Amino acid sequence: MSRRRSGCPIDLTLETFGNRWSLIILRDIMFGGHRTFRALLAHNMEGIASNILADRLARLAANGLLSRCGDPGHKQRVVYSLTEKAIDLVPMMAVMGSWGVRHTLASTELSTRAKVLEAGGPPLWSAFMAELRHFHLGAPQPAESVLAMMQSAYEAALAERRPQADLVAG
Amino acid sequence: MSRRRSGCPIDLTLETFGNRWSLIILRDIMFGGHRTFRALLAHNMEGIASNILADRLARLAANGLLSRCGDPGHKQRVVYSLTEKAIDLVPMMAVMGSWGVRHTLASTELSTRAKVLEAGGPPLWSAFMAELRHFHLGAPQPAESVLAMMQSAYEAALAERRPQADLVAG
Repeated sequence: MSRRRSGCPIDLTLETFGNRWSLIILRDIMFGGHRTFRALLAHNMEGIASNILADRLARLAANGLLSRCGDPGHKQRVVYSLTEKAIDLVPMMAVMGSWGVRHTLASTELSTRAKVLEAGGPPLWSAFMAELRHFHLGAPQPAESVLAMMQSAYEAALAERRPQADLVAG
Repeated sequence: MSRRRSGCPIDLTLETFGNRWSLIILRDIMFGGHRTFRALLAHNMEGIASNILADRLARLAANGLLSRCGDPGHKQRVVYSLTEKAIDLVPMMAVMGSWGVRHTLASTELSTRAKVLEAGGPPLWSAFMAELRHFHLGAPQPAESVLAMMQSAYEAALAERRPQADLVAG
């Protein structure tokens, strides 16, 4: 398929990811904190295949979205870190999540993080980016944890659902 | 390729588009105002093939992102309109454009619209959405035209480049 290069920033952004698995992997690192091949494979909710995961991790590293470090304790265990270029995708994840909440059949529990990011808007996105810079780039730890805020909203949504599940089971 | 459904709003958003041509077509309708098959084919900067354009237009309509109307003057000429679901992608286009400006080799001229949207932030995105609702959904015309604002920024960027092009040519 021939494809002309236009220089359009939207087209070039789409080109960087190639397909959705790349963004899904970045999502799992960003929101789930999974940073090894094994953890990413085990925790991916969409059932990513190991060959696809290996291929996309290599591509993301080649495109400067992930950096790789050997774990000193486990010679064969590579730890992936988000780069600044990847952390700068937080606004895109936030608006994609918002759109998905409104226009797809997203589950209530998995929508809670998106709703927290939407309600907080650009200032909260920046706070989340600062937190990711702490975990991935060694920047100082911010006072506020957006991950903790999203986690407690997620747990509250789970707890709200449980009584209904019990009713059905009973 | 088997793929589990997770209910994650980010994953479901990615699933709706399938591949980047769908978003490129929405970009051309949204920012370029091209609304017929012929205009979309003629003006696409990335050289989309006619069979891909036909396939993606049908998919976008099936997914509720485009509506189709016959043009009363030309029986065979279908005019596409963005739906509310598609207009709600403006924030995603804006943040994708911003990311592309910062992290890809986007051209200066094609980056001007993205910079206008970034500088204006969410309030300008809303104004642009109101303008698109006017053109595509028959809503009242807003006082301010974000399209005109982006167009004049684009023309200013072109004018700035032209003297240098003349120097090279001379």
